[in-house]
Amino acid sequence: MKAQVLFSGGKDSSLSAILLDPFFDVELVTCSFSILPVGEVAKVAADELGYSHRVLELDRGILESALDIIIDDGYPRNAINHIHKTVIETLAKEDDVSLIADGVRRDDRVPKLTDAEVRSIEDRFGVSYICPLHGYGRSAVNLLVGRYLVIEEGQSDSIAKADYETELRELIRQQYGDEKVLEIFPEHVQSRVIRRV
Amino acid sequence: MKAQVLFSGGKDSSLSAILLDPFFDVELVTCSFSILPVGEVAKVAADELGYSHRVLELDRGILESALDIIIDDGYPRNAINHIHKTVIETLAKEDDVSLIADGVRRDDRVPKLTDAEVRSIEDRFGVSYICPLHGYGRSAVNLLVGRYLVIEEGQSDSIAKADYETELRELIRQQYGDEKVLEIFPEHVQSRVIRRV
Repeated sequence: MKAQVLFSGGKDSSLSAILLDPFFDVELVTCSFSILPVGEVAKVAADELGYSHRVLELDRGILESALDIIIDDGYPRNAINHIHKTVIETLAKEDDVSLIADGVRRDDRVPKLTDAEVRSIEDRFGVSYICPLHGYGRSAVNLLVGRYLVIEEGQSDSIAKADYETELRELIRQQYGDEKVLEIFPEHVQSRVIRRV
Repeated sequence: MKAQVLFSGGKDSSLSAILLDPFFDVELVTCSFSILPVGEVAKVAADELGYSHRVLELDRGILESALDIIIDDGYPRNAINHIHKTVIETLAKEDDVSLIADGVRRDDRVPKLTDAEVRSIEDRFGVSYICPLHGYGRSAVNLLVGRYLVIEEGQSDSIAKADYETELRELIRQQYGDEKVLEIFPEHVQSRVIRRV
């Protein structure tokens, strides 16, 4: 059975794919709002991992709604969760999708669906939504990353990633300038997969 | 690296072991308070799965504390969680244990450690605690169980299991009689692994 794994090119989504690989036919899916070439960035990492990969092109209006939310809030949580929920619903509506996975881990706060949102998506669309790392803490993730991946880590603005934040930051930059990006997004270490061990 | 997987002989702990198998050296661990031969019951299922198995003999005092809690409360949650936490701490103290896993899944309420309890155990004992099924809902679990396991399901009192409840029910029965068991434990479908597919 095929598992669609939401893929940013970072360590968590990569490790989620590796954990599912023995049990499912993994297909990596990267979302893009066509603001930046995030699909191409993710494709490089996907090729290194050796999994098939596709780009899910999404309506730019979703990102613009998220922009309204984030400017209103002054912090990213609700905007990122809005994108995440919309992405999973979009994927769940596709005809041949029955299992969607993402890299959310135990200690993550964002993006994260509520239990009610997960149940609603599973019931409405007849899909299973799984988070292979949800029961893994930092030490267990680091252990597996060290064993299976070579990664590069750095501040968000210095790492070429394909997560929701990347294009959202760029949209804020285009419309409100660099200072607004720095004001809204706290310093945050991101990872990018260089290759598989 | 070895993973100690808490094992009741049911589908969730069996499936957790199967999910970890490609990445860790799985050892199944069944707790016993020497009230019933739960270690032997679990050993039969472990042999069917093909994993090494050991019985962790625990002080009967732990079960007696749980009995006090359950009689006081009139419902099982706190008593079962008390046993679960004590079992994980006992295992975490062992010299050669660095990774402990159990079969808790997304929709489980009991037994379940709080986030603070998990962090405390990981910090104090230098272990990683993981729940491979924590990000899996009912439909995904059923899918994998159907593919990898043949199970028997039935009400708790008709299924030979090796979970905490089994010996706790027996202790209640011995000290307070059958009616008290029925009063405290709601009807609940349990599973037992018959063999691996």
